[in-house]
Amino acid sequence: MTGKDGMITHVEDIGWEARLAARARRMQSSVIRELLKLTSQPDIISFAGGLPAPELFPVREVQEACQYILQNHGPAALQYSPTEGFQPLKQWLAETMSKYGIWVEHENIMMVNGSQQALDLIGKLFVDPNACIVCSRPTYLGAIQAWDSYEAQYCTVPMDEDGMITEGLPAMLDQSKQRPRFLYVLPNFHNPAGTTLSLERRKELVEVARRYDLVIVEDDPYGELRFEGQDLTPIFRLAPERTIYLSTFSKTLAPGFRLAWVVAPKPIISRLVQAKQGADLNTGAFIQMVANDICQRGILRQHVRRLRGVYRSRRDAMLDALHEHMPSGVSWTVPQGGLFLWVRTSDRVDTREFLKKSIAAKVAYVPGFAFYPGEQGGEHSMRMNFSYSDEETINEGIYRLGVAMKQELAGG
Amino acid sequence: MTGKDGMITHVEDIGWEARLAARARRMQSSVIRELLKLTSQPDIISFAGGLPAPELFPVREVQEACQYILQNHGPAALQYSPTEGFQPLKQWLAETMSKYGIWVEHENIMMVNGSQQALDLIGKLFVDPNACIVCSRPTYLGAIQAWDSYEAQYCTVPMDEDGMITEGLPAMLDQSKQRPRFLYVLPNFHNPAGTTLSLERRKELVEVARRYDLVIVEDDPYGELRFEGQDLTPIFRLAPERTIYLSTFSKTLAPGFRLAWVVAPKPIISRLVQAKQGADLNTGAFIQMVANDICQRGILRQHVRRLRGVYRSRRDAMLDALHEHMPSGVSWTVPQGGLFLWVRTSDRVDTREFLKKSIAAKVAYVPGFAFYPGEQGGEHSMRMNFSYSDEETINEGIYRLGVAMKQELAGG
Repeated sequence: MTGKDGMITHVEDIGWEARLAARARRMQSSVIRELLKLTSQPDIISFAGGLPAPELFPVREVQEACQYILQNHGPAALQYSPTEGFQPLKQWLAETMSKYGIWVEHENIMMVNGSQQALDLIGKLFVDPNACIVCSRPTYLGAIQAWDSYEAQYCTVPMDEDGMITEGLPAMLDQSKQRPRFLYVLPNFHNPAGTTLSLERRKELVEVARRYDLVIVEDDPYGELRFEGQDLTPIFRLAPERTIYLSTFSKTLAPGFRLAWVVAPKPIISRLVQAKQGADLNTGAFIQMVANDICQRGILRQHVRRLRGVYRSRRDAMLDALHEHMPSGVSWTVPQGGLFLWVRTSDRVDTREFLKKSIAAKVAYVPGFAFYPGEQGGEHSMRMNFSYSDEETINEGIYRLGVAMKQELAGG
Repeated sequence: MTGKDGMITHVEDIGWEARLAARARRMQSSVIRELLKLTSQPDIISFAGGLPAPELFPVREVQEACQYILQNHGPAALQYSPTEGFQPLKQWLAETMSKYGIWVEHENIMMVNGSQQALDLIGKLFVDPNACIVCSRPTYLGAIQAWDSYEAQYCTVPMDEDGMITEGLPAMLDQSKQRPRFLYVLPNFHNPAGTTLSLERRKELVEVARRYDLVIVEDDPYGELRFEGQDLTPIFRLAPERTIYLSTFSKTLAPGFRLAWVVAPKPIISRLVQAKQGADLNTGAFIQMVANDICQRGILRQHVRRLRGVYRSRRDAMLDALHEHMPSGVSWTVPQGGLFLWVRTSDRVDTREFLKKSIAAKVAYVPGFAFYPGEQGGEHSMRMNFSYSDEETINEGIYRLGVAMKQELAGG
């Protein structure tokens, strides 16, 4: 097609950057997304993504559900549908979440295109330019990306093995010049840290939120993927009046569905519905009906049980391999569920710089700095995913990483 | 579940409205969405929605494509996927659009969740609070909804039978204190007006955009649904250096896919990709692969040919019925394609007030005021959809509307 008049490759740049809104200056491409491109060569062992194991996707069950829905509800599945989401699926979610003590009605739920959309809509509704959001450091990269585009500022709280150190919250809030728009918390199997917020701290967080009259955004994509120990009470259960709860089918069913949900008091659901109308009208009915069919038949429950077993073995494989191959002085978190653990290297390893050597050794991770919003931190840490690769591959990848790190420490 | 401690229906309202960002004050629920709820009783004949005919959806073909994709590409279809979209589908779109003179590469295309998402992302990238957008009056309701949430102002230009009256643009632009962020234009079978922008005006629009160095957003959801006459050159073809072009599968394949695309110069595509990462990571791979399969097999082309025939008959049925049943003094546009026509009633009928009587007569439309951004207008107009109902139903609905309108004019 080259050479044709009007071919876009032949047109001048009219200076697009200068035309953008102020908020666009804060937007950047996700470090993870760019990394995933780098590491998509098949000979690289990647611990960088947050990908579920594709060989476990319930492909046959999805196939059957697609057939059933199109055969019996074809026109409704392919038409426009309510912004709120497909009511039978929301009803099923309401009933299912009650086992965690989240007692809501379907009107308290809105379906979204992945949790990322919920983070974006929450930003749109709550975040004025330079408004402050309280979160842990490190925190979820996708949340930073969503809220940077609304020009948020972050007040961060450090973490330890029991999650966000809530003891530091009151002093931080007393110093703050404005009331933060909300507290953002990932209580179960934190991304990237792998830690779980203890029950005591959940209670303390709620107590502080009530004292300072703050909204809480509870992001729980991995809660169903607990390998051991007991489920801890969701923050929503402790403070239903002020909590916006997010969860997703991306880690339990399939990310390709782009299907997640928000639970909140009705005044906020109706505002979220308005925001979603402007953002994309509605989430596709077909996908929601297929997911609903899979849920109603009990297939999801069985599937999640299987995932827990496989992911636990993979976590164990990673823990064993770290123990065997890492130089002394390197430490890591031991997650009770989820997809990630957090490795702390020696102070002599800058994980951002070291990534090049790691990729040369055909193994990839996400350097810790990516999870620190607008500030220093994470220079000696890395996020490691254990859900995507099988046990043998995990061992080989950690071996390669260990060799590269020993070379680095030896001054190589 | 009533009576349980923590049940959300029992919690107090913590004053959510006062916590919202300034931009949320501009957000409201779409008039159409709220109307659709009112008019969803089965005995109402609704000309209010913008719905394709559900009985024409290619359900069996979608079923076959789902089977094929899941059987052959299951894991990839259900996994996370690139934000830009599924490359083979983008390649197909690039080749297909070349028949309209839109010569682009797949890197000039990004897939989105319906055109509404493109409108939202464009707002996010370009619209600072109080920035001005140039559009026709009336204009597409969903665009107003998307840009209101970024606190846009609108500079509007009136329309006639040949679309936006471009002759008025320079005077309006000379008066404007700031450079508008972009010109928004729906050249083919305008929603709501049903008119098509003439080739002369397309050229004039481009000439003005170049003279004042403005970006053009060309929204073309209905372009493929031309019933008669010749395709007119897309604005993108005339000004590829400054045009962002939108189109969608919602009107040709099915709205339940939530699948549309943006065509733009590469610097803007890469900014849109960043914005989409923060907004929802990616559009589902499964749906994109299914749509691609349907496109590649030539099924979409056949299907669109069929839609054109059916929608033309329905438009004709509506034109005939209007001619037969409307009182004198009522006029309407004669669209050459698309889904809508625009009726102008007597000055003695306020279409917003009259809607109640219309609904009592079991027929619904969208009152014209809904399409006027932040200003008066459309009080004596209504948008009528002709794609959703069959010919007999269209005739019956227009008959009811005519009777009600004659009563109204008789002081009834």
